[in-house]
Amino acid sequence: MEGFSFSTEITVRFAETDAQGIAHNASYLVWYEVARIAYLARFRGGYRTIQEDGYEALTIESHVRYLKPVFFDDRVTVSARVADLRGARFRFEYALARGDELVADGWTQHAFVDRETLRPTRFPAWLAGEIAAAEEAG
Amino acid sequence: MEGFSFSTEITVRFAETDAQGIAHNASYLVWYEVARIAYLARFRGGYRTIQEDGYEALTIESHVRYLKPVFFDDRVTVSARVADLRGARFRFEYALARGDELVADGWTQHAFVDRETLRPTRFPAWLAGEIAAAEEAG
Amino acid sequence: MEGFSFSTEITVRFAETDAQGIAHNASYLVWYEVARIAYLARFRGGYRTIQEDGYEALTIESHVRYLKPVFFDDRVTVSARVADLRGARFRFEYALARGDELVADGWTQHAFVDRETLRPTRFPAWLAGEIAAAEEAG
Amino acid sequence: MEGFSFSTEITVRFAETDAQGIAHNASYLVWYEVARIAYLARFRGGYRTIQEDGYEALTIESHVRYLKPVFFDDRVTVSARVADLRGARFRFEYALARGDELVADGWTQHAFVDRETLRPTRFPAWLAGEIAAAEEAG
Repeated sequence: MEGFSFSTEITVRFAETDAQGIAHNASYLVWYEVARIAYLARFRGGYRTIQEDGYEALTIESHVRYLKPVFFDDRVTVSARVADLRGARFRFEYALARGDELVADGWTQHAFVDRETLRPTRFPAWLAGEIAAAEEAG
Repeated sequence: MEGFSFSTEITVRFAETDAQGIAHNASYLVWYEVARIAYLARFRGGYRTIQEDGYEALTIESHVRYLKPVFFDDRVTVSARVADLRGARFRFEYALARGDELVADGWTQHAFVDRETLRPTRFPAWLAGEIAAAEEAG
Repeated sequence: MEGFSFSTEITVRFAETDAQGIAHNASYLVWYEVARIAYLARFRGGYRTIQEDGYEALTIESHVRYLKPVFFDDRVTVSARVADLRGARFRFEYALARGDELVADGWTQHAFVDRETLRPTRFPAWLAGEIAAAEEAG
Repeated sequence: MEGFSFSTEITVRFAETDAQGIAHNASYLVWYEVARIAYLARFRGGYRTIQEDGYEALTIESHVRYLKPVFFDDRVTVSARVADLRGARFRFEYALARGDELVADGWTQHAFVDRETLRPTRFPAWLAGEIAAAEEAG
């Protein structure tokens, strides 16, 4: 997907479909999350390390445009990038494609927080640096 | 919730929480849906009747602002209203409150489609009329 | 449901159905859990109190017989009882009915554990006593 | 896993955990399903072909033993085999391992049905043959 340097693949599970015969709208937020985790896994142990360091990333906003229905067993490429990273906040953007066809896109906004208090805390400089480098390398 | 004439209640299920100890971000889209179904249930048999008449409502866009974390067993009031209804498209708006505290809000955009082809089709006049009347009565 | 002194009601959510047009088999374990939580809610603050006291109940075994398909918007009565309670272990049994029709049944086995270590610990005597009294009162 | 000739891998998603900090008990039934779909994908187009031929496989019974908690991002090998296949019924057995450690096991019972009527129908001979051959080849 143009403009994205990272992507991962999911296969639509039967459990993710609903009685309309297509993937349920809430499943996309789970796929976003799978892509975020895979995106971060490239940096020093990924999200688990973030947690072990005493942080969590809360989702504070989400948006999805469902452009084409996706079906059981469809293979979907989820592209993701970090679009903005300031202080305790950062934003992920996503594009979901089935083959060449864009089937959904959207974004999520996150707050970096202390794991115990759930209070906002500055994004770790090392991780911000690695993400910035990876996005530039694109 | 001000500006909403309809609401329903959900209790946060254990299965809807995640390892952050709070409700997972995808759960909110399920609660939106529970509210839409309850909203429509007031009109001639609700969504089941819509399906039996040969229609489905697809979700084509969703947005959530997560303002405060919600926890297992929290009782959440989900207010919903139809904000816009033109041709085959309509929009639901939501406000989620725990007691007096607004914990999330957002909206979804929908397309009314033929059940077999999943192609857009005009929203039934009778239902549009009943919804308009209910929203005005507020 | 005969032999059960407690029941709660759920309505099948659209998100709980799958492309077979019926409720997904994993949804039943969530309904079991909803029933357990409602069952325990009758005793001193319920599961939240159990957690605040430093315990969790882990599910260590589950069984479901799916006797009749259930559909979107079906109203299902979930009856539950504690069948066995010894040391750190206890068992819940369930019967799910749509009107007069038994649609599923089964059981889960649980271990009472320390919340921090997840190690088995004795079931609190006060709660065991209240459950025994409630089951006898039937 | 001894006695199993087929396995697939899943990574525990954040959405599949709960506030106990471990994977939710209902997630295992979804992983069973992922394994069934992958198991069948080896034979002529897999479950999608089964559906296109006018069939569905309903889950009529499920059982899980949760032996060890599994955590976010754990990589779990799900081994699966068809243990019994007579008339319209068949049984899948599962073993879930994290590295060398068995973390769960269990089985599901299924009925092969006509897609429209959901009535039991004979398992297709070609598929029964291919499964038997694959299991024997082990």
